[in-house]
Amino acid sequence: MEELTNKPVTAIVAYEVSAEDSERFLDSWNRAQAFMKNQPGLMSTKLHKAVSAAPDFRFVNVTRWENPDAFRAATQSQGFQEASGRLSAFSIHAAVYEVVAT
Amino acid sequence: MEELTNKPVTAIVAYEVSAEDSERFLDSWNRAQAFMKNQPGLMSTKLHKAVSAAPDFRFVNVTRWENPDAFRAATQSQGFQEASGRLSAFSIHAAVYEVVAT
Repeated sequence: MEELTNKPVTAIVAYEVSAEDSERFLDSWNRAQAFMKNQPGLMSTKLHKAVSAAPDFRFVNVTRWENPDAFRAATQSQGFQEASGRLSAFSIHAAVYEVVAT
Repeated sequence: MEELTNKPVTAIVAYEVSAEDSERFLDSWNRAQAFMKNQPGLMSTKLHKAVSAAPDFRFVNVTRWENPDAFRAATQSQGFQEASGRLSAFSIHAAVYEVVAT
């Protein structure tokens, strides 16, 4: 991260998932989410599924965190590494964002 | 789109932008947004900029629409094609989504 702040941040994670792998992805995501939803600093979660016909990313998860440290602590924890292990079967694009225009 | 509904949808557009191209991207995005913000059915816009060091997508725009037709009408309009022309200089990943878990 380029700078440390104490402001809320948004994590956006885009997953490459084929149509036939959707159920398997959701099983894996739900397992990770069962751990993540109890982590300190998590303000909201929105898992998006594409309705477009041929999306580059069939699933996109958008989570809001109280500050960057809360996000880091949650995702670097041993518990999350174990709970999210099955998601590593999919190609993932993840980064932390701030909102710059509305 | 796999199915037509009258429910709100979320458009997520991820842009591949190098750090040095950030200003040029924002100029182009603002030009498109000046048109888009007046289109019927647009409920909200959030342009995200990455604070992560090496993001796959430096900018991600998340817009909420009253229904899929409103999104289609706006993005397929001649006005939008003209206003968004400069954004075609960047690699873009766009799809329409519904929220499936919170």
